[in-house]
Amino acid sequence: MLDLLLQANRLKVMPRTGWMIRGIVHPESVAAHSYGVAFLSLILAQAVDEPLDRARLLTIALLHDLPESHITDIPYPALRFIAPAAKRTAELNALNEILRAFPFGAEYRELWLDFEDRRTPEGRLVHDADRLEVLLQAFVYERSTGNRQLKEFWDSTSESYFEYPASRQLFAVLRQQREEEMTR
Amino acid sequence: MLDLLLQANRLKVMPRTGWMIRGIVHPESVAAHSYGVAFLSLILAQAVDEPLDRARLLTIALLHDLPESHITDIPYPALRFIAPAAKRTAELNALNEILRAFPFGAEYRELWLDFEDRRTPEGRLVHDADRLEVLLQAFVYERSTGNRQLKEFWDSTSESYFEYPASRQLFAVLRQQREEEMTR
Amino acid sequence: MLDLLLQANRLKVMPRTGWMIRGIVHPESVAAHSYGVAFLSLILAQAVDEPLDRARLLTIALLHDLPESHITDIPYPALRFIAPAAKRTAELNALNEILRAFPFGAEYRELWLDFEDRRTPEGRLVHDADRLEVLLQAFVYERSTGNRQLKEFWDSTSESYFEYPASRQLFAVLRQQREEEMTR
Amino acid sequence: MLDLLLQANRLKVMPRTGWMIRGIVHPESVAAHSYGVAFLSLILAQAVDEPLDRARLLTIALLHDLPESHITDIPYPALRFIAPAAKRTAELNALNEILRAFPFGAEYRELWLDFEDRRTPEGRLVHDADRLEVLLQAFVYERSTGNRQLKEFWDSTSESYFEYPASRQLFAVLRQQREEEMTR
Amino acid sequence: MLDLLLQANRLKVMPRTGWMIRGIVHPESVAAHSYGVAFLSLILAQAVDEPLDRARLLTIALLHDLPESHITDIPYPALRFIAPAAKRTAELNALNEILRAFPFGAEYRELWLDFEDRRTPEGRLVHDADRLEVLLQAFVYERSTGNRQLKEFWDSTSESYFEYPASRQLFAVLRQQREEEMTR
Amino acid sequence: MLDLLLQANRLKVMPRTGWMIRGIVHPESVAAHSYGVAFLSLILAQAVDEPLDRARLLTIALLHDLPESHITDIPYPALRFIAPAAKRTAELNALNEILRAFPFGAEYRELWLDFEDRRTPEGRLVHDADRLEVLLQAFVYERSTGNRQLKEFWDSTSESYFEYPASRQLFAVLRQQREEEMTR
Repeated sequence: MLDLLLQANRLKVMPRTGWMIRGIVHPESVAAHSYGVAFLSLILAQAVDEPLDRARLLTIALLHDLPESHITDIPYPALRFIAPAAKRTAELNALNEILRAFPFGAEYRELWLDFEDRRTPEGRLVHDADRLEVLLQAFVYERSTGNRQLKEFWDSTSESYFEYPASRQLFAVLRQQREEEMTR
Repeated sequence: MLDLLLQANRLKVMPRTGWMIRGIVHPESVAAHSYGVAFLSLILAQAVDEPLDRARLLTIALLHDLPESHITDIPYPALRFIAPAAKRTAELNALNEILRAFPFGAEYRELWLDFEDRRTPEGRLVHDADRLEVLLQAFVYERSTGNRQLKEFWDSTSESYFEYPASRQLFAVLRQQREEEMTR
Repeated sequence: MLDLLLQANRLKVMPRTGWMIRGIVHPESVAAHSYGVAFLSLILAQAVDEPLDRARLLTIALLHDLPESHITDIPYPALRFIAPAAKRTAELNALNEILRAFPFGAEYRELWLDFEDRRTPEGRLVHDADRLEVLLQAFVYERSTGNRQLKEFWDSTSESYFEYPASRQLFAVLRQQREEEMTR
Repeated sequence: MLDLLLQANRLKVMPRTGWMIRGIVHPESVAAHSYGVAFLSLILAQAVDEPLDRARLLTIALLHDLPESHITDIPYPALRFIAPAAKRTAELNALNEILRAFPFGAEYRELWLDFEDRRTPEGRLVHDADRLEVLLQAFVYERSTGNRQLKEFWDSTSESYFEYPASRQLFAVLRQQREEEMTR
Repeated sequence: MLDLLLQANRLKVMPRTGWMIRGIVHPESVAAHSYGVAFLSLILAQAVDEPLDRARLLTIALLHDLPESHITDIPYPALRFIAPAAKRTAELNALNEILRAFPFGAEYRELWLDFEDRRTPEGRLVHDADRLEVLLQAFVYERSTGNRQLKEFWDSTSESYFEYPASRQLFAVLRQQREEEMTR
Repeated sequence: MLDLLLQANRLKVMPRTGWMIRGIVHPESVAAHSYGVAFLSLILAQAVDEPLDRARLLTIALLHDLPESHITDIPYPALRFIAPAAKRTAELNALNEILRAFPFGAEYRELWLDFEDRRTPEGRLVHDADRLEVLLQAFVYERSTGNRQLKEFWDSTSESYFEYPASRQLFAVLRQQREEEMTR
């Protein structure tokens, strides 16, 4: 169990590379982002009408970036050089090794795939939350650092990205507040 | 909802002061620690025989440091100068303000108090996990920075601190591995 | 004496939390701020007509944040959740412990209270300098980081805050230069 | 040409992940490492009897990590989860895109492959220098940070790794000085 | 040879002070800048019609800041307080000590002087590249940090600074892209 | 006056290079060191029998590194490459420019020279405090970072360095506590 915890602990020193390549100095760690996704999933779920399994929801959020403790956070623009199947296989291989000693390994792998493939309502909501958390952080960096290179996160996201009306509504509010502050 | 998310987002820039006052440069954030506690609670729960409500468990873990988004992380040694009631009142006041607009505010306050007062099995397990996460991080810092001032975390913790046998067992394994590596 | 010096040395690793919660990465330490306040008091005193005890003035400046070496720098907005008396008591308790072994302890406590309560011309001038140093640093951060969240420091300060005409004049010059640069 | 320079400029913000996952805080950038490899190649070449093309040598050194400006520095232990061919293909794809607009693109790709496959004396020497630079940096980190997790770099390298006698000699001197300092 | 490599290794921890005094947090190291100059020289040489000795060119680029491993990077505005001859003498003294044990010492000193005095086509091109690299980095910092104090780098550079038409052309393109982005 | 304050404010971003070249990551600023020297002078003066002018003492401490706001902190080992007179002249030139507009300029220059030349009891005490502060910080870094390269500060300092018995006593206590902790 200690090995598993030390492995997850590495997420605290993994920088989120999407910020890094755009010049954000000492950006948040993957662990801090994972916290953000889990918290955002928790709150967002309160605004969803559909019944949700909160235990499943939060477990998915806590697991969704675990393979990055081995693979690191390969930034999105790099993925056009790597076959998507190669990345998915690498992450599954890493997850298999991390969890191979545990009886709950199979369950966790299934939860990770739920997020990746948006299989269930919970996987879909964490997928929405993952994107909303990026935009929230982009807004926070834009107003605290003067970085001009985060605009593309906004340009590349539209309401249709999100599965839940609650996500779309939060996205709209966030985008509006960002526009108001940035043009002031 | 956006205000609540921006408030929790502040935990990403709050340093854990216990490391800071002992000379750890750029220590983990409160958000990264909260991720660690939530993940550790999840894994630790797998080793607990007692039935546990995993949704409650993880929600407590995600909420337990939320008041620090206002109050900051006042380090443990400072508490001998502040009346314990004063700190608890301040944190409750902060939590009340953070949650005042939400129907789920009362539920979350109750979960926070569960952690503080170790009221239920879930609150008690997160309490164990919170301490184990500190020790895990102390070990990681000791082997990666050569800091000699973290010894007191080990000296001030004994097995009797923990409520669950699974916690005591993890503590014993962690302490042993730390001793082996540090005396090598 | 070594214990006292090690205690003050901690101010070098304490971040100023007012900057931190507004997203300034790796903000100045409390020690650096204390240097700024002492230097600003020294220079400001040159522009004050009233006779001043320079030794008293600089000693107050060097001592005014010493309790934060135990308590840390609790940010201003957090104070609405903590009874003012509780904070003052905590800081006095910390100061008492720091100075308890020294014959000059009573004198230093009196100097600290002078700053807190603006009792003498010297305490009042350091109080002015403390605020001016914050505004000077806000200006420096605004022009070097593009942070948009420091505006409230300017909005919440008017000339009437300051006791000395020299302080008011420096504030006016600083505010004007900031406005010129920020609207360019 | 500006796009190419901005792309290479990204290496300044890419951390070397091998240090990062072992807990080195704010490790060197890939650009700083590339400087080290180029400088070490230059000096090492002075001790090689074989005739070498210095222009080719230094160009290989400056190019050898260029694909990481897109792909990031995937740490060595992660490569057991990724098919080697997949990584090589990704890096070649990235290099092709970076260089596609330039008449010298084909030459540079050939130089990059020379390093990867150790095809010519120059490619082999940079390959030696790349490893020696890692060990030099490991030694510098060990004596300046107290990190205990870099030992595996030494354990996993033997003289047979290196192609040139000059490299083996430098490795022996470096290993000896490291052992002397670390056991003192 | 190890001493020489450890000396050059120091450039990795030397900050470029020109950025530092203008408030760029954790600016690039001298080593990262040297990489940038070497890479830029390599690419720029491709656009120069005149025949160039690429080995000489890249060696100059890798050596040009080596004395700073002893002297540190004294920022340009400080030079009005130091006699130019004093700085040059200090850097030559440092270089002499660094290289005194090596048969190639005399050759390297001559290459360093070539850069300083722009004696040959290669020295002149690295001199151009050194300035272009500063402007490239200024642009990167301006768009990623919101710093308003880098304008003077642009104001103090005109096309006549550069010796080669290729340098002037790159400067023009860079300046134009910067103006477009900054006024957007 | 604002220009003078902005100039002194630069000391907050100037790293102390003596730590930097020995591999301390993100070392203290010159401003934080100046705070340490002023505070240490204040406390040390309490243990000196000789009558001292405390205002003069603290003013010297606050001014002694002011020229570094222009020149930066050139590390001690670099001084063997620079004629001592050249460094002193550069610092005096910088100080003259900083203070040229002020009626108190001449007084401050005299205080700076007092420190440099140890002319009066106050200048001598700050000179002692400056060294003691370095050793105190060396001890703090040694126990918090595991850096093995600070030993030379201890090896190069003997009791005869200090002018005052109180300084010698503090040095002895500090050295002893350091030895006890480092050999544990």
